[in-house]
Amino acid sequence: MRPKLTLKQIAKELDVSISTVSKALRDSPEIGEDTREKIKAFAKFYNYKPNNIALSLKNRKTKTIGIIIPEIVHHFFTTVISGVEKVANEMGYNVIICLSDNSFDKEVINMEMLANGSTDGFIMSLAKETMQKGDYHHLIEVISQGMPLVLFDRVVDQILCDKVIIDDVLGAQKAVQHLIDIGCKRIALLSTVDYVSVGKLRTQGYKLALEENDFELDEDLILKIEEMEESEEKIEHFLKDKDVDGIFAVNEHFAISAIKYIQEHGKRVPEDVSVIGFTDGELSKRFIPSLTTVSQHGTRMGEEAARILIEKLEKTPGEDEQYRTVIVETGLVKRNSTKSLK
Amino acid sequence: MRPKLTLKQIAKELDVSISTVSKALRDSPEIGEDTREKIKAFAKFYNYKPNNIALSLKNRKTKTIGIIIPEIVHHFFTTVISGVEKVANEMGYNVIICLSDNSFDKEVINMEMLANGSTDGFIMSLAKETMQKGDYHHLIEVISQGMPLVLFDRVVDQILCDKVIIDDVLGAQKAVQHLIDIGCKRIALLSTVDYVSVGKLRTQGYKLALEENDFELDEDLILKIEEMEESEEKIEHFLKDKDVDGIFAVNEHFAISAIKYIQEHGKRVPEDVSVIGFTDGELSKRFIPSLTTVSQHGTRMGEEAARILIEKLEKTPGEDEQYRTVIVETGLVKRNSTKSLK
Repeated sequence: MRPKLTLKQIAKELDVSISTVSKALRDSPEIGEDTREKIKAFAKFYNYKPNNIALSLKNRKTKTIGIIIPEIVHHFFTTVISGVEKVANEMGYNVIICLSDNSFDKEVINMEMLANGSTDGFIMSLAKETMQKGDYHHLIEVISQGMPLVLFDRVVDQILCDKVIIDDVLGAQKAVQHLIDIGCKRIALLSTVDYVSVGKLRTQGYKLALEENDFELDEDLILKIEEMEESEEKIEHFLKDKDVDGIFAVNEHFAISAIKYIQEHGKRVPEDVSVIGFTDGELSKRFIPSLTTVSQHGTRMGEEAARILIEKLEKTPGEDEQYRTVIVETGLVKRNSTKSLK
Repeated sequence: MRPKLTLKQIAKELDVSISTVSKALRDSPEIGEDTREKIKAFAKFYNYKPNNIALSLKNRKTKTIGIIIPEIVHHFFTTVISGVEKVANEMGYNVIICLSDNSFDKEVINMEMLANGSTDGFIMSLAKETMQKGDYHHLIEVISQGMPLVLFDRVVDQILCDKVIIDDVLGAQKAVQHLIDIGCKRIALLSTVDYVSVGKLRTQGYKLALEENDFELDEDLILKIEEMEESEEKIEHFLKDKDVDGIFAVNEHFAISAIKYIQEHGKRVPEDVSVIGFTDGELSKRFIPSLTTVSQHGTRMGEEAARILIEKLEKTPGEDEQYRTVIVETGLVKRNSTKSLK
């Protein structure tokens, strides 16, 4: 018997992208007929079968939920996983986790692998690269075959499915409003690049709060960070010649890098500069000064996502298909990195 | 077609443990013949098949590695996963992660699920409950069917397989020796209960260091913590009436709880009490004072484990079976929670 090839190996052998192979095997008109035929013939010869979801759905339930997340060394995602695990286990489901590592190819490969009879449905947060490319064929494919999908945190409008999000705009707005309330005049924003949906939305919230309080928007006070690894350096460089008295950061790592820089350069937090982060993780709680943050309630998001997915899995087929978007409310957790209200 | 049952459902229906079902389906003599037959008949009726590893091995490679870890909200395990992902991806393998949540039943269920054609081999750290029970039939079963297994961190002698560990005894000993070198006289140990292998080994290291320096062992200075959730409270209660000048904690959470308690009760770290933790996580680096720790090199452990597993998966069958234990060396990372050497 010929060895079974993976999607990745086929792509490599034929020198095309994984996305092309994946689309060709589904007869997507996006791929030219010649290429499509070549890929299909090659796959057939090597005994590769695209996922047999329909078959799996008819014949058996795996009682397993697949989670695909962009990264694991990030406290928020681990809390979401805990939430999913909790509800899934209570309802008799297992959970399998895969990481996309923010790569589009890995996301496609993982989805293909899990859809291939290992899971009944998906809970996912999109890879950065997927959002950048705007290529969602793998998600649409899975949904169109009747496999339920719940997106959380990093979601996009283009995909019709259930979603669990927080109100990023409002959360950010509340945080910046609080900085204004305690008297901050020059408030910096430490954000991620705009194609990451949450970075974009939290930037909107920042701008809205300024606007509502008749603050002038100063683009020089906004830093957009591309890669986590370079964040510390970028933040130091950014803060070097800025005279700010408030900082809103879209995650706790950026917030803590800012505090460290400020403290090491002769200023005090919160006396001279108040700092608010996003994501209420272990670091925020335990850092000294403890961090004022917008809490994302990751566990609750995971619980909601699992509940919605399992409900979909267990409802009678043929019932009206309706998609929900659940908004988990954020809260401002006030700690010691911001001044008290006057 | 009858619905396919899961291991858990069979156990529930017949009112026996998951372990009993799992053993009965493998014809284990540990289970009485009556029970065995009943379980097998029931499973057959409901179309349940124990994992068909042999079949899967002969016919195809999934090119997927399964990781089973006890918990995810623990920085060490996420670094191990990163290490496994890195090497696995370089070598064309996918990775699937499952959590045992420190439960024996969940570990058995996850293993069963992943062995059922989803993965080629396992990288695992044992659940607390599994070590407490000493029931390893699920691991032995998988190995005996020719599926390679690499254990890391929480390993046991009873299982013959490849292992990746750190030298916990030596790591702990180095840490306590350092406390002695900087002049500490009364050194407390904050550890986990003994059936967690690392807790036991690090306690050994602590005792060895005291012995070598002719310090008398004072059992009153040793705290064994059962549950993570109760650790903060236990540590506060323990430190209340202890006059210590050094603390060695077997993880960073215990260390930070200790520092917080000390600081809130009028003493200084490191001037009055020096504190060393284990596991060099994000918290240790970013806490103020930054934490002196024994570094576990989780990423390197993950990389080693993946390399060993893939090597096993790709070698020609029939070659001599040999098991290795790789010891990843620990290092003492000196930061600001300990006094300088005099």
